[in-house]
Amino acid sequence: METKFQFAKELICEAGRYIRDNMTHDLVIEEKSRFDDLVTDLDKGVQKLMVERIHSAYPQDHFFAEEDNLVSDINDGSVWVLDPIDGTVNFVVQGCDFAVMIAYYENGVGQFGLIYDVMRDILYSGGGQFAVTANNKPLSSFRDRPLNRSLIGGNNAMCAQNVMGIANLGRQTLGIRGIGSAGLSICRVLEGRFIAYFSDIAPWDYAAGSIMGEKLGYTILDLHGQKPNYKTRQKVMFIPKAKLKEIQKYIK
Amino acid sequence: METKFQFAKELICEAGRYIRDNMTHDLVIEEKSRFDDLVTDLDKGVQKLMVERIHSAYPQDHFFAEEDNLVSDINDGSVWVLDPIDGTVNFVVQGCDFAVMIAYYENGVGQFGLIYDVMRDILYSGGGQFAVTANNKPLSSFRDRPLNRSLIGGNNAMCAQNVMGIANLGRQTLGIRGIGSAGLSICRVLEGRFIAYFSDIAPWDYAAGSIMGEKLGYTILDLHGQKPNYKTRQKVMFIPKAKLKEIQKYIK
Repeated sequence: METKFQFAKELICEAGRYIRDNMTHDLVIEEKSRFDDLVTDLDKGVQKLMVERIHSAYPQDHFFAEEDNLVSDINDGSVWVLDPIDGTVNFVVQGCDFAVMIAYYENGVGQFGLIYDVMRDILYSGGGQFAVTANNKPLSSFRDRPLNRSLIGGNNAMCAQNVMGIANLGRQTLGIRGIGSAGLSICRVLEGRFIAYFSDIAPWDYAAGSIMGEKLGYTILDLHGQKPNYKTRQKVMFIPKAKLKEIQKYIK
Repeated sequence: METKFQFAKELICEAGRYIRDNMTHDLVIEEKSRFDDLVTDLDKGVQKLMVERIHSAYPQDHFFAEEDNLVSDINDGSVWVLDPIDGTVNFVVQGCDFAVMIAYYENGVGQFGLIYDVMRDILYSGGGQFAVTANNKPLSSFRDRPLNRSLIGGNNAMCAQNVMGIANLGRQTLGIRGIGSAGLSICRVLEGRFIAYFSDIAPWDYAAGSIMGEKLGYTILDLHGQKPNYKTRQKVMFIPKAKLKEIQKYIK
């Protein structure tokens, strides 16, 4: 597993370099479900690069990835969950605040996760048997603090519509921040900057973060408090386990 | 003016170093108007440092600053507008995404503005007779692009309540981002990452950005399209002049 983890770290840095080297070219941008759901030729190129590298090193392994309909069940053997560019809108419009994500499962058990903040060159990695680090500096386990001295990260639309009481929770805190990248928002939770993160996202958006988070006292749940299904897009919260009861006073 | 601009650049970097050197100490945090309106001993210490340095170099000059009730009229001679820590909540909770800001006016005419992203070590400066740069790299004037390929920066609460139609405008775009620092949101507009920024803020929050923005095709207006008063907190928008009519279709 050590070798596989090392392989994943090198791969995600290669993917990041590939993006940085190619992002100044004219992007080919396509709309997926609607005008604000974008994919570029670079999302596809990066995923292709990662799938090829992994397939060549581990030909038996399976994939669950954002593009190209690669949808293995995470319970089925050795499965790589890939998000080539998390925060594609930020990538296209801002040229920053996007990430590459890799999660690796064996028979449904998360072995390690990696989130790479490409433009800041910060690699968050670990989980399973590995310490969780940001550029090799260990991250601390969750330290309790009051909601009214905390910030939460959120999906703007859900907060605006007060989905399941998220805005009510927000009013107990110092505010809601909307970055536009699930992966980087989850990293802010892991770093202790946000106390929780709420969004409507897919398994490749939360898999890597949830594997790292398990090691530091965090968990990913749907808004009813159940494990998400790791199959479809769902409204989820990434929260400190120790805060679940307090958060559930508002999220219902 | 060249000397004064150089002085301001050195001063803001000194202020940033002072914050970085002292932010790991235990902060003394006070609530101002309510629990989410915070000030720390460091906000006060940084402002004191800046006021002392300026007073000693330019004893005739006046101040308009966030802390300590220093409220000169910007039309009254040589006036320094100071925000020692913009994004105090981010500073306290996240330890990032905050800025120091300086704007300098002579008889109401902005001469230069500076916004220093302390943790990323990026200094945005210029306006008046000076080119606008980010760490000495020139920023481009506004380049037109459609709303549906753009992001806006906003105050989460205003967006959630759809104040004057901000959420309606948001739905024409790829989304709304909430960073929690007026200065850094305005810098994202200057960099072309956000197309506009909306918030309920005070003169020291928008002065530096508006002086730089004037040079690149942007302007600061209240939500009725009038110049803000440079005296009190107001709901304002920082937008490309070329987009005013289009934005006013939604903001009313």
